[in-house]
Formats: sequence, C-alpha cells, structure tokens
Amino acid sequence: MFAPVGTQATVKTLTPAQLDELGASLVLANTYHLYLRPGDDLVAEMGGLHRFMQWPQPILTDSGGYQVFSLAQTRKIDDDGVIFKSHIDGSTHRFTPEKSIQIQEHLGADIIMAFDECSDPNDHEYSKTAMERTHRWAERCLAVKKRTDQALFGIIQGGINPGLRATSAQFIASLPFMGVAIGGLSVGETKSEMHATLDLVTSFLPENKPRYLMGVGTPEDLINGIARGVDIFDCVLPTRLARHNAAFSSEGRLNMMNAIYAHDRRPIDEVCHCYTCQTFTRAYLRHLIVAKELLAATLLSIHNLHALIQLVKDIRASILDDTFESKIPAWLEQWHGNAERTV
Amino acid sequence: MFAPVGTQATVKTLTPAQLDELGASLVLANTYHLYLRPGDDLVAEMGGLHRFMQWPQPILTDSGGYQVFSLAQTRKIDDDGVIFKSHIDGSTHRFTPEKSIQIQEHLGADIIMAFDECSDPNDHEYSKTAMERTHRWAERCLAVKKRTDQALFGIIQGGINPGLRATSAQFIASLPFMGVAIGGLSVGETKSEMHATLDLVTSFLPENKPRYLMGVGTPEDLINGIARGVDIFDCVLPTRLARHNAAFSSEGRLNMMNAIYAHDRRPIDEVCHCYTCQTFTRAYLRHLIVAKELLAATLLSIHNLHALIQLVKDIRASILDDTFESKIPAWLEQWHGNAERTV
Repeated sequence: MFAPVGTQATVKTLTPAQLDELGASLVLANTYHLYLRPGDDLVAEMGGLHRFMQWPQPILTDSGGYQVFSLAQTRKIDDDGVIFKSHIDGSTHRFTPEKSIQIQEHLGADIIMAFDECSDPNDHEYSKTAMERTHRWAERCLAVKKRTDQALFGIIQGGINPGLRATSAQFIASLPFMGVAIGGLSVGETKSEMHATLDLVTSFLPENKPRYLMGVGTPEDLINGIARGVDIFDCVLPTRLARHNAAFSSEGRLNMMNAIYAHDRRPIDEVCHCYTCQTFTRAYLRHLIVAKELLAATLLSIHNLHALIQLVKDIRASILDDTFESKIPAWLEQWHGNAERTV
Repeated sequence: MFAPVGTQATVKTLTPAQLDELGASLVLANTYHLYLRPGDDLVAEMGGLHRFMQWPQPILTDSGGYQVFSLAQTRKIDDDGVIFKSHIDGSTHRFTPEKSIQIQEHLGADIIMAFDECSDPNDHEYSKTAMERTHRWAERCLAVKKRTDQALFGIIQGGINPGLRATSAQFIASLPFMGVAIGGLSVGETKSEMHATLDLVTSFLPENKPRYLMGVGTPEDLINGIARGVDIFDCVLPTRLARHNAAFSSEGRLNMMNAIYAHDRRPIDEVCHCYTCQTFTRAYLRHLIVAKELLAATLLSIHNLHALIQLVKDIRASILDDTFESKIPAWLEQWHGNAERTV
C-alpha cells in the first residue's frame, strides 16, 4: 500500500471525504510536527488522531527522528536522545526513544515507529554510529511501549554499506516488532544503491511481517520496491508535486502550467479514473494554475495520489493472480519519466 | 437564491462536487477576469463556461463594468465605453456595451448582465451621469444581444438619490429584460440607505421578473433584502471570510483562529448541517488555521456558503407556507452579529 502523508493531521488541500474517494487507506502523520503543534496532549484530549482529523481508516505515525534531523534549527544528539530547537518558534525540546513512544501513544495511530537516527548514506563511519544507536533505541522503544492496540515497527539503518545493512536487518528482524521499516533510503543515494540495499535487506527479513520502505517514492520506486518485497510506502511527493503544478502520467511527469496545455481538451492522463481526470481538461487545470487558484493544488493532489494508490492496487491484484513478475517491464515502461527530481 | 462567486471559473478552494453537495445552484463568474484570463475565446472553444468549469447548474456572468471601475489600473470612460489597463499585466483593453455582450455570449452563462457604470452613491451629480449612461448602454445591450438561450438582465443605478433611483427603476423596468438587477448598493452607503433604496426601487418593479441585488451580502442583508422583494443575491463574502479564518454562526461571526477554540469540541455552529460542522471540531479547524493548512479555507468556505444557501432555502420555504413575515425578527436575531466588516 501507498500511504499519503498528512504531516499536520491533514493531507494537504484534501478533505477526508476526498481522500477516501480517491482510494486511500493508510495515512501517515508526523510526530515531530504534531508534538510541536497542536501538541500530542491536545490530540489525546480530542480523542486521538483518528477523531481529531476524522480519518477512521489506519494511521501511521513516524518517530519524529527524521524531522528532528532535517527540520529542527539546531540539534545535539547523544546516546540518550536529541535536544533540538523548534523550526516554528525556536523553543528547545528533547526527544528520547521513551519520549517518542509516549507522544505516539498519545497520538494513537495504528502503526507507530521506533525512534531512529538516519545518517548520510555515504558516510560509512557515521552510518555505523547511527545504526548502533538506532539498535539500542529500538530495544528501549520496545521496553517502554504500553498500549497494546498499536503495532510498533522497528527501523533498519546502515546507510548504503552492505555489512552495516546486513547487521541492522538481522538485528531488527530478531526483535519482537510487529513490522520492519527500511529507513535511510531515498536520502541521496543512487537508484542502483537503493535497489542493492533493498535486495540485501529483504533477504534477512521474515516473510510474515510487513516491510515498510520509508519516504519512497515515485511510481518507478514503488514498482521496484514491490519487486524486492516491500509492502508499504509513504511519500510527500504526490501532494508536494501537486502544489508545484506537476502531475504523474503515463506520458511521464507533466508540468501542467506549460502553455502547450492551454487548449488541451484531454484529462491529465487518459487512462486515469480519478475525479480530476474524469471531470476536467488540461486547459482548465492550466487556467487554475496560471490564475493562482488553490483548487489547482486540490485537483492535482487528487490525481497524483490516485495514480500511486491505483498503481499499488493493480500490482496487488497482479501478485494475487501471479502475473506481477511478467508485468514489471510493462509497468516500468508505462511509468517511465515520472521520476525527475525537479521539485 | 444566493449565488456563490466563482470569479475565475472556480469558487475558490472548492470542487464542483463540493459546491453541489453544499446545496449551491446558481454560480456567478466575472466577465472582466475571464476575458483577461484565460480569455472568452478560449472558454468558448472549450465548450463554454459550464463545460470549462464543469458546473452544469445555472451560471450568471456580470458585465465586467464593476471590475473595470474597481480593479483596472487606469481607466478612461466616455459615452461609448471604457478604456482600461489590465490589473494583471497592464495591457490596454476597451469594453463597450457591445463588447461586454459579445464576451458574455462567448462565455455562455444562463444569465448575463447589461454593461453599466456603478457610481459613488454619495456623489449625486456623478450618479446622474452614470445612471443616464447606464440607461443608454442598457438599450445598446438589448439591441446587440444575439443568443436566445441567455437571459439578459438590466441594471438599475442612481446612487442613493430617491429621484434618480425611481427614474432608473422605471426606465429599466420598461425595457424587455428577462430580469432586473439593483446595482450600486453595498458600495459605501449605510444599511438604512440600502433599505430605503430597496423599498423605493422594488415598488417600481414588475412582479413577474426576478430581482437581483448585486454583491450582497451578509446573512442580515439577505433577510432584509428578501423582506423587500429581492430574489437573487451574490457575494464574495462567505468565501473571502473563509480565507481570513472567519465563520458565520448563529453566535455571530467567529474568528476561528482565536485561542479560545483550541480545546473546543463543538462544530462551528451546532445548528448547521454542512460537511464541516457534521465532521470537524473547532479545535481541529483552529489547528489547521494556526498550522497554515489550506484545508482550513476549504472547510470554512463550505460552512459559510452552506450557511447562506440554507438560510435562503429556509426563507423560501417560509414564503411558500406564508410564515416569512412572522419569522423575520427571529431570523434577524439568530444572524445578528455576522455583519462586522472586519475583512
């Protein structure tokens, strides 16, 4: 499955009704953001994330670690945890494995994540340090978890070093997590490094636990990830691209502001069944973008999310009828050209 | 009926599906904006406004006159028409009554408006000049109109001067328009001046043609307008307020960013049946606003438009069962406090 990202308890520009209609089920929300604003206590007081954002289907929260390292203004990490300043108001906060689990128990998602440290994939020495710390934190998360109605997933780190990745996969797989996540990918490594790492890591993972590739990705990434045994993906890409006027399509990624679409009566993608493609022309979408109308972001978000969600649905059906392997080349061909990192 | 405004062929932040669900029927679009961007030729080429914006229910376009006088950078008016510079790129354009009708025939709305000049209501001398020009332009609009599937409405002007308004109402009512609009109100006059003008003007209007009060207004304005015989209203207020975090309610206008709502589990208005009020707490809406999430504008737009559309539906039902007059005081009391001009 592909999980749309609802960073601040909202998948940007979409109502839960629209999200449901486009086929979403699992939605990801960010612990770092919700801890800072509106606060996990407030969310708990309002009955938890499902009730707060009115998303009755499954929710996954990340551990907050990745955002602390990528968004917070200053941070100081040690073996116990990390002190950081809020990117919103500069206030000082401290996350530890115990604190991350406590926040996630307040938020009340169905799937929660162990607190981890994501390293620069090309920095071997630091990747080893971060991996070892991630392992110790994984055990602390398991030890402190109280709620029995949430599935805690562990996270594999280790950069792109095969030795570290093998060690991390075996270690995380050996712990009593309900699922296993592969972190530290799609953070600057090449596609072939990502694929080699996935091939290696998944060879150590149990068959009976879901595997979650964090922060990935493009249509091609999903096809390649599933081919390597991944079950769950999440990424801001479809909604972020939408807010930058870009649309996934079987013709490749389209910049819908392009003047060539001014008179184009076709939908974004003639093979797509989303509300946007069933309703509007490229000419209208381009007009909305040029006129700076917010509806453009909504309509492109619907389309881009539907594209990925429908893709994984189609792949799931092909796995069940045993045709997935044979269809991989056609799928990769169809979705070729959607991976440019232009945004 | 109350018509939401879709200036640029979109009611801001809402899909046509959401607009339909909240009970809208007639939608207004602006001739000035659509002429400049994307162009009336393009809209015609795409099958007209209904198909372009995918709103199959009635559409009304204004004449472009009001926007030329309020938005265009520089303008020079004479008895033939007006030359103006686009507020978008400074390019020079000319509108005449004939041109306005031609553009509106290209756009293809169900109701189109005669080209008029709106004057400062307190400038008696200029109001007379503008009214006389509006009358000559009204005849030219009727003469040049070609399409038989569009209802052309004339517009009464005359500022707040009773003599001018009586003259204008009688003149416009004497012409073969399908409906009559009252222009030049809600542009700086007091409420009692607006009400006196409505009382006067409607006394000259035929019973069998719809009366349209342009650019109005608040819930109280609608109640007071209907009490004086008005049938149709349009206003940007509900969607503009929404984008400034304000909500109509039976408690008065609420600023949903207010910290008092941080822990408030109630909907915006407990008597409201819109999607927003049936689904979300004030606490969640405030969170979206504080976190600068675009969904806030969508959800508040749904609520504010639903409030006005439901109000006129309730009033229509009360007219049919002959209870309107007796309910006016209660309605005015219920909607008291929604009229502050804070935005």
